[in-house]
Amino acid sequence: MKKIYTSADIAEMPQRYRANFINAIEGFKALNLVGSINQDGGTNLAPFNSIFHVGANPPLIGMISRPATVDRHTLSNLKKSGIYTLNHVHSEIVDQAHQSAARYEVNQSEFDEVGLTAEFLDGFKAPFVKESKVKLGLELRQITPIELNGTILIIGEVVLIEIDDDGIDNDGFIDLQKYDSTAVVGLDAYYQPKLIQRLSYAKPHESLKKV
Amino acid sequence: MKKIYTSADIAEMPQRYRANFINAIEGFKALNLVGSINQDGGTNLAPFNSIFHVGANPPLIGMISRPATVDRHTLSNLKKSGIYTLNHVHSEIVDQAHQSAARYEVNQSEFDEVGLTAEFLDGFKAPFVKESKVKLGLELRQITPIELNGTILIIGEVVLIEIDDDGIDNDGFIDLQKYDSTAVVGLDAYYQPKLIQRLSYAKPHESLKKV
Repeated sequence: MKKIYTSADIAEMPQRYRANFINAIEGFKALNLVGSINQDGGTNLAPFNSIFHVGANPPLIGMISRPATVDRHTLSNLKKSGIYTLNHVHSEIVDQAHQSAARYEVNQSEFDEVGLTAEFLDGFKAPFVKESKVKLGLELRQITPIELNGTILIIGEVVLIEIDDDGIDNDGFIDLQKYDSTAVVGLDAYYQPKLIQRLSYAKPHESLKKV
Repeated sequence: MKKIYTSADIAEMPQRYRANFINAIEGFKALNLVGSINQDGGTNLAPFNSIFHVGANPPLIGMISRPATVDRHTLSNLKKSGIYTLNHVHSEIVDQAHQSAARYEVNQSEFDEVGLTAEFLDGFKAPFVKESKVKLGLELRQITPIELNGTILIIGEVVLIEIDDDGIDNDGFIDLQKYDSTAVVGLDAYYQPKLIQRLSYAKPHESLKKV
């Protein structure tokens, strides 16, 4: 049945219920594993699902880190090293990706703990996920606290990409279904998206065409 | 064939190619139609695909608006009115949603132009999309320019939600496949995601279970 939820309804939800509900209602999200290194060269891996487009030229990607009140290895690593990687998750590594969210000790590498392989590409110092089919290397450009709730806005510039170019169209579009990239809803649900269609550039009073 | 793209490779891409490429490589994104009103009560609708989770308590959602150098009706409207709506796009309204990106004149409502219906719920002053199956009303909380490229970070608090509660699990999780919500890649490709699985909360040295 159609139902309306007000601010008061949302505020009264039990904490875990509200976390599931609000994280889901925003829609489908990309899942990326973020690879980083600490000062001793130790590798770290963590899933982030708040990845968003900031710009194409220069190529900027944003993400939100939870409040720094608990020990956030990723945030601390990339503040110090200034670099990190984003790695897509395909259906065969969903379990490992999900498990990398567990709170391992700082001297344990999530790569080893969950069974993924750290890989270094083209002299870039942060670790990529070897098993991943789409890998991005980023340089940190901005860290801004969001005062509303203590989360941290992180923006990086893409400086390295590894991908099989067979799935890239002539106009630069990449059909991520060909790479089996997954999408997520909420905190723990994994999806395989299937292409419906691409549509032509929208102009007033002109019919859309399938591309 | 696996290929590595460097900063120089990305910088040399033709503008449109790079826009498609960078917008796609970030992964799947939610698509939401943003509804707003101008000072004269005229309605406006525009697709945004850079929606991201900022927090669950209070329920905060972020989005990125392109640079304010061209006339951005949505940005101008929500600065003045302080409210807006987010409306999910299901497969049957993909064409209308895509067409709402066209640059209509300020006195033309995209609702009328593309054939969607403006709906007002529970006294909220910004228009929802009647056809949409998941509707969120937000109050503006923060507008912050991103100096790196002139885009604008917008954060709002969810104060109203309309959804059929049949698809909401006992723990608050919402399987968006039940609402036929679409995901997008890049600027123009629409996808229907299919659930693979939900996984239990990850803890060190404990096996994951399907939820």
